[in-house]
Amino acid sequence: MADRPIKQLGFRTPLEVASIPNITDLARKGALGLLDVIAPGHPPGSDTAHLALLGYDPFKTYPGRGVFEAAGVGINLVEGDVAFRGNLATISEDQVIVDRRAGRITEGADALVNALKDIKIESVEGVKLLIEHATEHRFAVVFRGLNLSPSVTDTDPHEVGVKLPKCQPTEHSLAAERTAKAVNEFTEKALQILREHPINLERKSRGLMPANAVLLRGPAMMSKIPTLEERFNIKSACVAAVALVKGVCKIVGMEVINVPGTTGAVDSKLENKADAAVQLLRDHDLVFINVKGADEASHDADIEGKIRVIEKLDSMVGRILNNVEDLDKLYIVITADHATPISVRNHTGDPTPLLICGPEVLPDGSREFSEKAAMHGGLGRLRGMDVMPILMNYLGKMKKVGA
Amino acid sequence: MADRPIKQLGFRTPLEVASIPNITDLARKGALGLLDVIAPGHPPGSDTAHLALLGYDPFKTYPGRGVFEAAGVGINLVEGDVAFRGNLATISEDQVIVDRRAGRITEGADALVNALKDIKIESVEGVKLLIEHATEHRFAVVFRGLNLSPSVTDTDPHEVGVKLPKCQPTEHSLAAERTAKAVNEFTEKALQILREHPINLERKSRGLMPANAVLLRGPAMMSKIPTLEERFNIKSACVAAVALVKGVCKIVGMEVINVPGTTGAVDSKLENKADAAVQLLRDHDLVFINVKGADEASHDADIEGKIRVIEKLDSMVGRILNNVEDLDKLYIVITADHATPISVRNHTGDPTPLLICGPEVLPDGSREFSEKAAMHGGLGRLRGMDVMPILMNYLGKMKKVGA
Repeated sequence: MADRPIKQLGFRTPLEVASIPNITDLARKGALGLLDVIAPGHPPGSDTAHLALLGYDPFKTYPGRGVFEAAGVGINLVEGDVAFRGNLATISEDQVIVDRRAGRITEGADALVNALKDIKIESVEGVKLLIEHATEHRFAVVFRGLNLSPSVTDTDPHEVGVKLPKCQPTEHSLAAERTAKAVNEFTEKALQILREHPINLERKSRGLMPANAVLLRGPAMMSKIPTLEERFNIKSACVAAVALVKGVCKIVGMEVINVPGTTGAVDSKLENKADAAVQLLRDHDLVFINVKGADEASHDADIEGKIRVIEKLDSMVGRILNNVEDLDKLYIVITADHATPISVRNHTGDPTPLLICGPEVLPDGSREFSEKAAMHGGLGRLRGMDVMPILMNYLGKMKKVGA
Repeated sequence: MADRPIKQLGFRTPLEVASIPNITDLARKGALGLLDVIAPGHPPGSDTAHLALLGYDPFKTYPGRGVFEAAGVGINLVEGDVAFRGNLATISEDQVIVDRRAGRITEGADALVNALKDIKIESVEGVKLLIEHATEHRFAVVFRGLNLSPSVTDTDPHEVGVKLPKCQPTEHSLAAERTAKAVNEFTEKALQILREHPINLERKSRGLMPANAVLLRGPAMMSKIPTLEERFNIKSACVAAVALVKGVCKIVGMEVINVPGTTGAVDSKLENKADAAVQLLRDHDLVFINVKGADEASHDADIEGKIRVIEKLDSMVGRILNNVEDLDKLYIVITADHATPISVRNHTGDPTPLLICGPEVLPDGSREFSEKAAMHGGLGRLRGMDVMPILMNYLGKMKKVGA
């Protein structure tokens, strides 16, 4: 939700313009600060941002995108798995990439991805595949076996008009060579399956782009990350619609809840998220809610849409406050995982506003919740990974350092 | 320019007393913060300060003074070079140090340093010397060859009345032993050349201290530092008079501009720096300007001189703002690389005031630029190495961390 001064809003931000009575009330009872989710000036990805906000050092703990994508679509990863984010794509006869998203295929995409589950890796011994469809052209693929490595190149060149590249090892190791070989075998066999698949034949007959190739990116190896329960002895749950965010939450051991009607888009049913959170707070120490819509609106430079999502977010907060049991014990943190200024239409490294409110939080005298108010907040300037220890401190879950 | 409350100024600082209308205007449009250039309480050197302000971790990236001194006097360093800062000095017959700066020799110093260029290292195989005069008693010397090391002692004991020391390895390695041997051979041969040099005979006849010895300090090995262009994909230039600062800028890949009439002293022609900056901004993404005069005045406890330099600096800023093309796209950062309080007459670890102004910077409501105003600035408290990512974020030059 964080932004920069917008000329059309009289050099105010959407957060300053939006009507947010519930959050304003929390700001008056609590304390504000500025949050560098990763580090000053560094634009966060959605995965590193959530890793940081959940209390993990993003520079030390981040394994790469693949494991979060795979976890987000429901694959149960084990240590040593090498995971990729995959795209269904369109290539020409001579394997030149025509469209990286196969015309943003929706219908039939899950069947095409399911067809890839028949592939067996034969060129590399002891490698098993796990594949799951996400949404539209998106899927995740995991290579499971001993002696694999994430030190290999993407087969997604991130541009069209070039030939589908081979996967190459980026380090001189048997594990990287084995992995690259397995990826290349998977890709070739996928091409064979997709080329003759009835869904693609039908797409062609209707003049649509066939989803006749796979592009893999973000290789990442699953390794043991201490869970929130192990670190803080808490039971935690997450309410989110975006697979990548759900994946991060799952990897850190949170219960991941699917809420009907929540889509990650501007029209997501946030009241359902509120109700789910209220329910979860009955038997969880921590409930994390992600609202994606304001970011979506920013990517589309939709100022009005962004303001609307922020106002819906405020209603969601109000609904939680009205319905939660033990309101007098509730600690609330409100922040953005990154700024997406309307002028930039992409994540930036601007600090985001942070609000903490709860029974024992010292109020800082703030009158509102905004980027500007956060600059003068009593919490000062913090890092994303500081938020969890601050919150856990109020819950009495932090261990003394030393004696 | 940063200072502490000064009694003679009614416990105000030079920055509070100086008339700085242009910078005041920028403060009202932009945002302020406190900057720990290295880390809280740590007095920065000029080299580490600039390394940090240009976005490098001074604790991880600093190779030692020698390479910056050598780069600053125009020696093109290659990886593996071991560089020293050198002083022409005066020693007695029995090699006791009488003056570490040979009576601050000016005239003839360059000829004496040039005479040292004839020295050939014979005791260590494959070692070549590169020597350049800087200003007054200052020069730089580089030992080039395979298997050298910066792990050797200074031959400058930083005090008079002691014998000229031998260079010693500080680690048990062939490279350190070879380097110490080469330094000692260079020193002995320099003594022979300087003793009989006509300039020194003439100095003696005039009752001046002969520059009859060399003192080396700050051994540092050149290693590859990623340039600003490699890190941020920007074209950058530096306008500075001080060799050490120019050296840092050169090592990080900036174009280093020599501006006539700029000396690093209180009387340096800052309007020429302004004009050079305006010119450079036509085809560079980043122009860095260093003004040394306020620090010089502080070392001399010259309160009035310091105020005057700050006012000249403000005029320089005004001249840039009046003449730059595309003012509406310009981002400006104003800060000090360290405090040099009049009361201390040396660099201290006080935080310095930071000002950022530009088209998309959220104004924090500041009314002036001063140490005190910076304490309440909306940017909070930052590290020197955060400034570049923050600036590059506004320029859209930061890469996303994660996906």
